[in-house]
Amino acid sequence: MTGRLTVIGTGPGNPGQTTPEALEAIARGEMFFGYGPYLDRLDLRPDQRRIASDNREEIGRARAALDAAARGASVCVVSGGDPGVFAMAAAICEAVECGPETWRRLDIVILPGVTAMLAVAARAGAPLGHDFCAISLSDNLKPWEVIERRLRAVAEAGLVIALYNPISSARPWQLATAFKLLREILPVTTPVIFGRAVGRPDETFAVVELGDAGGQPADMATCVIIGSAETRLIERPGMDPLVYSPRSASA
Amino acid sequence: MTGRLTVIGTGPGNPGQTTPEALEAIARGEMFFGYGPYLDRLDLRPDQRRIASDNREEIGRARAALDAAARGASVCVVSGGDPGVFAMAAAICEAVECGPETWRRLDIVILPGVTAMLAVAARAGAPLGHDFCAISLSDNLKPWEVIERRLRAVAEAGLVIALYNPISSARPWQLATAFKLLREILPVTTPVIFGRAVGRPDETFAVVELGDAGGQPADMATCVIIGSAETRLIERPGMDPLVYSPRSASA
Repeated sequence: MTGRLTVIGTGPGNPGQTTPEALEAIARGEMFFGYGPYLDRLDLRPDQRRIASDNREEIGRARAALDAAARGASVCVVSGGDPGVFAMAAAICEAVECGPETWRRLDIVILPGVTAMLAVAARAGAPLGHDFCAISLSDNLKPWEVIERRLRAVAEAGLVIALYNPISSARPWQLATAFKLLREILPVTTPVIFGRAVGRPDETFAVVELGDAGGQPADMATCVIIGSAETRLIERPGMDPLVYSPRSASA
Repeated sequence: MTGRLTVIGTGPGNPGQTTPEALEAIARGEMFFGYGPYLDRLDLRPDQRRIASDNREEIGRARAALDAAARGASVCVVSGGDPGVFAMAAAICEAVECGPETWRRLDIVILPGVTAMLAVAARAGAPLGHDFCAISLSDNLKPWEVIERRLRAVAEAGLVIALYNPISSARPWQLATAFKLLREILPVTTPVIFGRAVGRPDETFAVVELGDAGGQPADMATCVIIGSAETRLIERPGMDPLVYSPRSASA
């Protein structure tokens, strides 16, 4: 008998943003593999088994989950946000490619979710209303030179930039260096949005200008959105401004 | 009295992908503004009013919705997918910026959703597993030269590309021209994914190589994902291949 492996995302953290199909998959699952804090968001029954692992052990976790599914279990692999954006879906694919032939015969289903940048954008207005990109600022798995080249290319091309994994205790300088590079290309008045745990009680959210960006609190779970030269800010009395990128672009 | 305006996304079309918080907003709404086919997906009560408008009338729709909210109604503006990605949230912001001062005092809430590229990516594997971008191929609101420059920049920088609005009867040649341009930069074996109505009964889904891309059926609702040079394809017996972009990148 062969089991099933479903890769799900819980959304950015507000329970109202977990899709019904992900909730159904959770209800059907027997074994749950994921980073502890993501598994903590699930309301599991006593008969459902929880296998937590550290943030940095993605391939090991993927292999353990595939192995359990190959033994016949109904397995859920749990990411925050969307599992396809800098998360477990790619790790599962990598493990399948390098693993035993039997893993290619498994029933693998990946369910999309609301990724962090969409929740942060919605909280701010519509900064991703026109062409944009998502870049991981982690240089654990790619050289920093590649990240700098990408940031330069997308900023010069006029795309709004969403940064994932902007900073951690092991990578303290990369975010400030990215802002410095972007200040050479974009106006210092470009809106920059910091969002973390948006929609949760511990939400942090701030909009600053690129010229002032750098000192704001941020960690691995913060999503940073940097506007293009066309991104605009609408002041509102007694409320946060609306930040948006117009649907049109000039030459 | 001032009403409330909530901008929601229904997700890509599979009802299991509409978030609980969007469903709650629909239950609370009195007036619903949107493109007819998106409003058709809602299960409205007889006391809820439906104001459908054409796909190309986004600013007029936004103004009408803001006006109704300013008169005290509880208004929902409805997009497919995520309302912040090439959809109504930016049109609402534009209308607020250009509209009467009273519109800046409205309670405007934007709720994120699952945007098309995430659903197409999940169906394929994890093609957005590393740095990627989303570009609208419509030259209705930006010059074609800007689109070509952006495509070239992101392909050369190694980002996976999700194309929205790839083709319509009024814009028949742009998608083929984009593939031609990308073939100058990327290997002809680069995986290209065509997804439309993913997760719905009328789903269309195909994976081809960039060298063969161009003849596949596509329309405004198709999302096309073009891999980077690092995107890989895993063949599986009796099943669709898994397409994914590794979490690592070389220099």
